Amino acid sequence: MQRGWLDHAEGSVLIEFGGTRVLCAASVQDSVPRWRRDSGLGWVTAEYAMLPRATNTRNERESVKGRPGGRTQEISRLIGRSVRACVDYKALGENTVHLDCDVLQADGGTRTAAITGAYVALADAIAWMRERGMTTGEPLIASVAAVSVGVVDGEARLDLCYAEDVVAQTDMNVVCTGDGRFVEVQGTAEGRPFDRGELDALLDLAASGCAELTALQREVLGR
Amino acid sequence: MQRGWLDHAEGSVLIEFGGTRVLCAASVQDSVPRWRRDSGLGWVTAEYAMLPRATNTRNERESVKGRPGGRTQEISRLIGRSVRACVDYKALGENTVHLDCDVLQADGGTRTAAITGAYVALADAIAWMRERGMTTGEPLIASVAAVSVGVVDGEARLDLCYAEDVVAQTDMNVVCTGDGRFVEVQGTAEGRPFDRGELDALLDLAASGCAELTALQREVLGR
Amino acid sequence: MQRGWLDHAEGSVLIEFGGTRVLCAASVQDSVPRWRRDSGLGWVTAEYAMLPRATNTRNERESVKGRPGGRTQEISRLIGRSVRACVDYKALGENTVHLDCDVLQADGGTRTAAITGAYVALADAIAWMRERGMTTGEPLIASVAAVSVGVVDGEARLDLCYAEDVVAQTDMNVVCTGDGRFVEVQGTAEGRPFDRGELDALLDLAASGCAELTALQREVLGR
Amino acid sequence: MQRGWLDHAEGSVLIEFGGTRVLCAASVQDSVPRWRRDSGLGWVTAEYAMLPRATNTRNERESVKGRPGGRTQEISRLIGRSVRACVDYKALGENTVHLDCDVLQADGGTRTAAITGAYVALADAIAWMRERGMTTGEPLIASVAAVSVGVVDGEARLDLCYAEDVVAQTDMNVVCTGDGRFVEVQGTAEGRPFDRGELDALLDLAASGCAELTALQREVLGR
Amino acid sequence: MQRGWLDHAEGSVLIEFGGTRVLCAASVQDSVPRWRRDSGLGWVTAEYAMLPRATNTRNERESVKGRPGGRTQEISRLIGRSVRACVDYKALGENTVHLDCDVLQADGGTRTAAITGAYVALADAIAWMRERGMTTGEPLIASVAAVSVGVVDGEARLDLCYAEDVVAQTDMNVVCTGDGRFVEVQGTAEGRPFDRGELDALLDLAASGCAELTALQREVLGR
Amino acid sequence: MQRGWLDHAEGSVLIEFGGTRVLCAASVQDSVPRWRRDSGLGWVTAEYAMLPRATNTRNERESVKGRPGGRTQEISRLIGRSVRACVDYKALGENTVHLDCDVLQADGGTRTAAITGAYVALADAIAWMRERGMTTGEPLIASVAAVSVGVVDGEARLDLCYAEDVVAQTDMNVVCTGDGRFVEVQGTAEGRPFDRGELDALLDLAASGCAELTALQREVLGR
Repeated sequence: MQRGWLDHAEGSVLIEFGGTRVLCAASVQDSVPRWRRDSGLGWVTAEYAMLPRATNTRNERESVKGRPGGRTQEISRLIGRSVRACVDYKALGENTVHLDCDVLQADGGTRTAAITGAYVALADAIAWMRERGMTTGEPLIASVAAVSVGVVDGEARLDLCYAEDVVAQTDMNVVCTGDGRFVEVQGTAEGRPFDRGELDALLDLAASGCAELTALQREVLGR
Repeated sequence: MQRGWLDHAEGSVLIEFGGTRVLCAASVQDSVPRWRRDSGLGWVTAEYAMLPRATNTRNERESVKGRPGGRTQEISRLIGRSVRACVDYKALGENTVHLDCDVLQADGGTRTAAITGAYVALADAIAWMRERGMTTGEPLIASVAAVSVGVVDGEARLDLCYAEDVVAQTDMNVVCTGDGRFVEVQGTAEGRPFDRGELDALLDLAASGCAELTALQREVLGR
Repeated sequence: MQRGWLDHAEGSVLIEFGGTRVLCAASVQDSVPRWRRDSGLGWVTAEYAMLPRATNTRNERESVKGRPGGRTQEISRLIGRSVRACVDYKALGENTVHLDCDVLQADGGTRTAAITGAYVALADAIAWMRERGMTTGEPLIASVAAVSVGVVDGEARLDLCYAEDVVAQTDMNVVCTGDGRFVEVQGTAEGRPFDRGELDALLDLAASGCAELTALQREVLGR
Repeated sequence: MQRGWLDHAEGSVLIEFGGTRVLCAASVQDSVPRWRRDSGLGWVTAEYAMLPRATNTRNERESVKGRPGGRTQEISRLIGRSVRACVDYKALGENTVHLDCDVLQADGGTRTAAITGAYVALADAIAWMRERGMTTGEPLIASVAAVSVGVVDGEARLDLCYAEDVVAQTDMNVVCTGDGRFVEVQGTAEGRPFDRGELDALLDLAASGCAELTALQREVLGR
Repeated sequence: MQRGWLDHAEGSVLIEFGGTRVLCAASVQDSVPRWRRDSGLGWVTAEYAMLPRATNTRNERESVKGRPGGRTQEISRLIGRSVRACVDYKALGENTVHLDCDVLQADGGTRTAAITGAYVALADAIAWMRERGMTTGEPLIASVAAVSVGVVDGEARLDLCYAEDVVAQTDMNVVCTGDGRFVEVQGTAEGRPFDRGELDALLDLAASGCAELTALQREVLGR
Repeated sequence: MQRGWLDHAEGSVLIEFGGTRVLCAASVQDSVPRWRRDSGLGWVTAEYAMLPRATNTRNERESVKGRPGGRTQEISRLIGRSVRACVDYKALGENTVHLDCDVLQADGGTRTAAITGAYVALADAIAWMRERGMTTGEPLIASVAAVSVGVVDGEARLDLCYAEDVVAQTDMNVVCTGDGRFVEVQGTAEGRPFDRGELDALLDLAASGCAELTALQREVLGR
């Protein structure tokens, strides 16, 4: 994780996990969407996208196709929900933080890398706001980190790369707070339904993976 | 659940759960999408939508807005993955079953009602195909049912209606096969992250809820 | 015609004509479109749509295609013009009634069934508004009903089902008020132009058909 | 009506009626749409559009808005149905004629001017095809002309200009063949429903107006 | 160049160059875009489009395709920049002039004909505004004219028609003010890069071509 | 310029000029667009885009807005024309090279940086193809490099950064081949038209700037 990768953004980080590289940028705006005005509360929003040649074969640009695909929107919504778990809207004041997570290169786990990086960019943007007196109290009430886990050859594995992801029988994305509670659990059977035992093993593995990432985030943020 | 609600569809069911009413229609097409041709395998696809006045206040039509929203696409993808867990593509042959789940009235749990009903419509459509000799062997290798569970006032509850859904601290959708294994587990903290104990309680409740629905599906299908 | 089919809508009716089933919902909004503001006048608008499997073979969803088709918009405009003939905008006050006509199953005459049902839903919505003191005087100044008539095998026929519609030499939709005057007359030659004698025969038949529907509407509305 | 206004088009006419000016261009294509292939039959299609400053105040371009409006599509469909009444598809062979009717200036009656002009452009395009041996037998089996009639101050009037159109109580577009039969009859009450007597008076007036235009078309085409 | 070709527009000209015919209409609006409000400054904007049958073979309508193509937008932007060089926004006041350049027939040089005509329509619209006291001082501070030049068979040529344009080795569009300075220079090598000598020859030719057009514009405007 | 910045792309370079950072990726596809099939010729295409937070303030994503803006398409077309000047389509065979130029950070001159980088990515992709025997003869027949020049405070300047770009009186983008000939010359007066003397000074400066970049490209490519 390289903080401050961009000159203009109020918070930014280039996060690399294996072959996966995601550029997370936080943009501060001193207003909120219309439906939120005059509430005294802030807002945090996220968008996820992939460069056309992030993957093994080129994908057509979504701006050219005319709309973001279903997968893109689903991941954007997941990232948004995850980072919103970290924020006290009242302390944020009527400000919006936009988090842009652009996958420059993909090798499995792009959505979880995006969440983990988005938190760091958000923390930096909030620090930037705090210095300028835009906040009241502490808007950052938790940290989040995310991992993907899966069952490959009948065995629970952490951080699947693309080649493993393709053959996984179950694929699960888990988002945890820094104190080990769950924000999101999304498990999908690919091919073969999974039983409660497998689910429990995956949850254990995910929780310990998130804890490691939380430590890494703290180190990068110098806390 | 009223089977055969539509005259034209190869399978159809009007499913009612509390105030929620979803019309599920299965359409058989004797070909597959282009990327699947000459594979000898079939395909199953699903689309979810809501009538403008299904809800308390009118929503603008997505055809007028020009595109299905992110939530709509996410649910369509979830239903598709769920029903695909029931199907042996080889036995289905190069045929496609389209499942259309249209919410006529919404009062919480529309996505899980849609999955539970879509399975029944799918089963009828496959029976229709079997009679016409379009299948080889048995394409229907499992059943699926889905419930929504949530934590309301610190307590795990099954099948939240809209009023409960709004105040739930955690919201989870679980899709199970008829033999009690998991196809999808999607849990989201609304407001407050949840711990492993709460997660376990929700999973127990969901599993028993799905088992009841499975029994109901069997009864409706006369099995 | 089943009134009150929906729990949330201010007026609703499920209308069945032969195999055709249309769900008409009226939604009351206590404001008007921007171009109408501060005029003291209300507005009534209508949208027509068809579920993908309403017909014999599945049609792609218009939200997925990205826009309502020309036929859909043309029918929506026709329904809107027809129901607006019933309304005194001044008595309606600065409120809007949206009429959503969704075809659940189609077997000919969907647009005329939609108009006939939309009037009933509108009447119920206006009654709902009257009870809440949202109107001044009586906004409902007329009733409308609509039929489709056609020439099949050289003979004028009322209410064509789909099979007859396909072979009709002339197809005409007529919208009449309860007192027998015309709101819309739309006749189209399919294949062979029609002469004045045929036109007169169709108009006679349509007028008597509309009169029957008007009686039915009154009965349903308990007037 | 000035024939041959365009150098490239196989048939073209600039038609002027009062302040209304419509440029009608016929384009011949030696193939048919996919759904029509290998049928031995031809096809005729029409599109209507208006330049942004054809009217008193500028309208936004439909290409910029991203879609043709409902009114535009409805008129395009009307023109298409009208000119298709003139054509024997078998004699046309597997060729398509596209008719583009672009309103350069609008002062009432643009859709009826477009139909009247489109027939002339179509006749020229078919003559062009005949010379090149693209047809078998005579594809042009009828002529069509159209007028708008209306009730203004309680009196039936032919060819309303924009100022009259705005105040008309009833507005009717009638398309007739050269031998006086009807292809389309579209009457709409604006404000006040009309009775059978008014309808009859409008139909009489329209029929005689179409007959005059038919004579004019023959003269322009040198027949 | 025929001034006043349209009755409604505040300025209009039909410009013909060889086979090319472009209708330029200027529309005055007594407000400015939102980002420009309360600045005391006016705005000028331009849109370019081509009728489907302006060219040798029919092009699909951009409204039907759902968006203006890249070439269309690029030319609209070029025309806008060119005519904005003529205007003192302060003297124009908070008014907008929209310039619509619609190609009725194309035979090379449509974008340069559009610029040359748009200036005349703009001049007329500004005269119309001046008469109504909408301006303060003189908003028209320069004139612009444009030519296309190219290298055909190794030789610099002015005003390429379509047939020449296709075989040109270099294609250059030049926009000059009435006093001979440059507003835009856009040269593109088609096939073979060009050297400084060729570039200089093209610039000389273009400057003299623009001077001739400037004289023509003055004559048409009666100055 | 860092070559090989991406693992998957057949050619890639991260080019930095001042604060501007553009990631250029070349993707090889062993087929050509439909209109080019069976011609024996290859094709090269380019797309340009900017990440939302590349600039000082965040821009909305073009995929969310539903279409690439006019500026984006204009630059994509410019890059495409520029790199196509380097290629012998016959030697390339029926293959396509897609060049994606994504601006990660913008500080002036993004389009010229994109062209300069795209050439290097293209050269690497063609080398990759040559090794696999996909080409016949040498497809790379020239190199291209591009600079932006402008008049700031009456003086010609090379490589304007964003702050200078904003105040430039004239802005010119020039694309040259490695042997010093011109592929594109695009000069635009911002505010004040420019005369021939200024144009000549800008062209001299641009030519020498391109020569320097050509030397740099050779060094990076190890030639």
